[in-house]
Amino acid sequence: MLKKSRLFTPGPTPLQPAVQEALARPILHHRTDEFRAVFKECTAGLKQFLKTDDEVLILSCSGTGGMEAALVSVLSPGDAMLALVAGNFGERWAAIGRAHGMAVTVLEAEWGDAVPAERVAEALDRDPRIRGVFVQLSESSTGAAHDVEAIARVTRGRKDTVLVVDAISGAGAMRLETAAWGVDVVVVGSQKALALPPGLAFVSMSSRAWAAAERAETPRFYFDLARERKAQAAGESAFTPAISSVVALRAALAFVASMGGVDELVRNAGVLGASTRAAAQALGLPLVAPRAHGDALTALYAPSGVESGAIVKALKAEFASTVAGGQGKLKGQILRIAHLGYYDATDILGLLATLEIVLRRLGHRFDLGAGLAAAEAEYLRLTP
Amino acid sequence: MLKKSRLFTPGPTPLQPAVQEALARPILHHRTDEFRAVFKECTAGLKQFLKTDDEVLILSCSGTGGMEAALVSVLSPGDAMLALVAGNFGERWAAIGRAHGMAVTVLEAEWGDAVPAERVAEALDRDPRIRGVFVQLSESSTGAAHDVEAIARVTRGRKDTVLVVDAISGAGAMRLETAAWGVDVVVVGSQKALALPPGLAFVSMSSRAWAAAERAETPRFYFDLARERKAQAAGESAFTPAISSVVALRAALAFVASMGGVDELVRNAGVLGASTRAAAQALGLPLVAPRAHGDALTALYAPSGVESGAIVKALKAEFASTVAGGQGKLKGQILRIAHLGYYDATDILGLLATLEIVLRRLGHRFDLGAGLAAAEAEYLRLTP
Repeated sequence: MLKKSRLFTPGPTPLQPAVQEALARPILHHRTDEFRAVFKECTAGLKQFLKTDDEVLILSCSGTGGMEAALVSVLSPGDAMLALVAGNFGERWAAIGRAHGMAVTVLEAEWGDAVPAERVAEALDRDPRIRGVFVQLSESSTGAAHDVEAIARVTRGRKDTVLVVDAISGAGAMRLETAAWGVDVVVVGSQKALALPPGLAFVSMSSRAWAAAERAETPRFYFDLARERKAQAAGESAFTPAISSVVALRAALAFVASMGGVDELVRNAGVLGASTRAAAQALGLPLVAPRAHGDALTALYAPSGVESGAIVKALKAEFASTVAGGQGKLKGQILRIAHLGYYDATDILGLLATLEIVLRRLGHRFDLGAGLAAAEAEYLRLTP
Repeated sequence: MLKKSRLFTPGPTPLQPAVQEALARPILHHRTDEFRAVFKECTAGLKQFLKTDDEVLILSCSGTGGMEAALVSVLSPGDAMLALVAGNFGERWAAIGRAHGMAVTVLEAEWGDAVPAERVAEALDRDPRIRGVFVQLSESSTGAAHDVEAIARVTRGRKDTVLVVDAISGAGAMRLETAAWGVDVVVVGSQKALALPPGLAFVSMSSRAWAAAERAETPRFYFDLARERKAQAAGESAFTPAISSVVALRAALAFVASMGGVDELVRNAGVLGASTRAAAQALGLPLVAPRAHGDALTALYAPSGVESGAIVKALKAEFASTVAGGQGKLKGQILRIAHLGYYDATDILGLLATLEIVLRRLGHRFDLGAGLAAAEAEYLRLTP
């Protein structure tokens, strides 16, 4: 049987065709007016994407590089910081902080849950020296979402504490009102909702964040955001940018605009996520994050008696579809299906049908078509 | 909502990615050893694709051009010919014959049926002057298939009558044993099972067909297959070929070989077709060709109370999926879903799920998921 390779992983996500076309073009030189114009279009588009008038800087690195750039730019060694850890990526905030000598306090949630804003308020009351709160909008290892709006209500009144949000996989898949909520720093990666290859990170910085950056003494060079701020105001990056990726970013942002803007992309992921959750319930696959789920991805336990790894392998072997398995302590227990980025209903419904076929082959008992019936009904309910 | 443009039409079909890559390469010159090597690889691959040792000529024209080239090469003006007409494309054989002054006898089948081999035998017995029998393997306007194997049993014993098969949409989607069955001329188009853009046609010619070509006096120049035969033996075409398309053809043939050959591509279409027919039955959409269906495509009547044009429009508007409507006398009455070429189970199951959503919106009453349940069950039955 013919099989098309398809990624349903929460990054990298499938490339948008206009992105592919842009990547295939002859390269520009980056110290030219032509490229500066592209760069400026991109930073303007990223502001709309993140709903902020703050500067959004374009860095040539992965999302983790963006996280590190954000952290070293707002803290000094020895500074107290709060890391909200609800999964594998939350642990990364703590690890980056420790690598740079910060005094890291961890607020942990059970994997599948999120850390509530009240616990953040309590922690900040307990230790007023905390200079930064670091959190994921979407925790990709569990599919859980933090209530960044509520957490920002806690942080925005404390003038010496900035809120730094890893929205690498959340931005463009879930609501994020950077300016309206008062989020100080947002980090995004290119290979997520924007449907680009990995290689670019985007960091927005509020005036509070820039004030923190002026004070921050953590040694930094490539990730010196103040240096980038100056260069990028003129449409250049301080160091050689990933030129083709920037040209492709312009195409990606134009695609989002053509859809009706980021809200429509968020709505798309919301409908696909809800349809997937409905199918999962009908098929007896428990959600990993039933109370705190986001829409960037859906993480599911295998039904009893079936190995999740066997499902992942069978989808790949029989249909060439790649879903993600578990990370960290959920390794081997779950599967994760992405909704962020360039997916449409036909993609997700097709995947769910092949998931039914695979589950049937693995001996799971359910009515064939039950998951599709539930997913279609949910789709119809949400798109009247 | 995000929508990806998808073609489910029986030509053009989606491009295979290696074809897209090949088309994007810098162009070669066609009077070079490099291109001659590509050309020869293609003719060798086409022989495997059509299961014959006969020469297969590559023409730069659409499938209709290939049909005309075949007809003018084996008949002289005034010659008697038999056109088997089971739909829109059968009528084309008659029209081309009349345009060149042939004495055309039409054997008609109801649309949705095929002309049986016995009627061909009777017609040839009745009129021994008939020099050519012209037929479609797959009649794309109805989804019906002719029993070319049985028809070839009738023609291959009559030394002055050649069998010319339009396999434009049938080859690579349905069984075709050119040599073993004794088919004299086969015509194929590039934009069908081979997943190339339109622009190339392929014509295989048996020794009986070449003998007819020597006698044939129909005026011809661009479509002079004897001239092409001579040029193509040396890896060149008589006139400037569609160079990039030929380079892409090599990639397309390599893809078919990597799947396990044309039989596997045929099996793929067979499973997708059977799954689609199972879904159609479960959803109450009558087949246009219930007795004579092929696997290149499935043609369906709308359920009672629903306009087929409304289904076609809604699939396009809501999901950006293009299925074909009806042609000729079936215009406005049916929809046609392609299986030939670069489609996999995820594609077809995804389309069927969106078809359910659209049917529900249009007021058709059925159990959501019923079509998917039937399609998945049929898929499981056929791929144990």
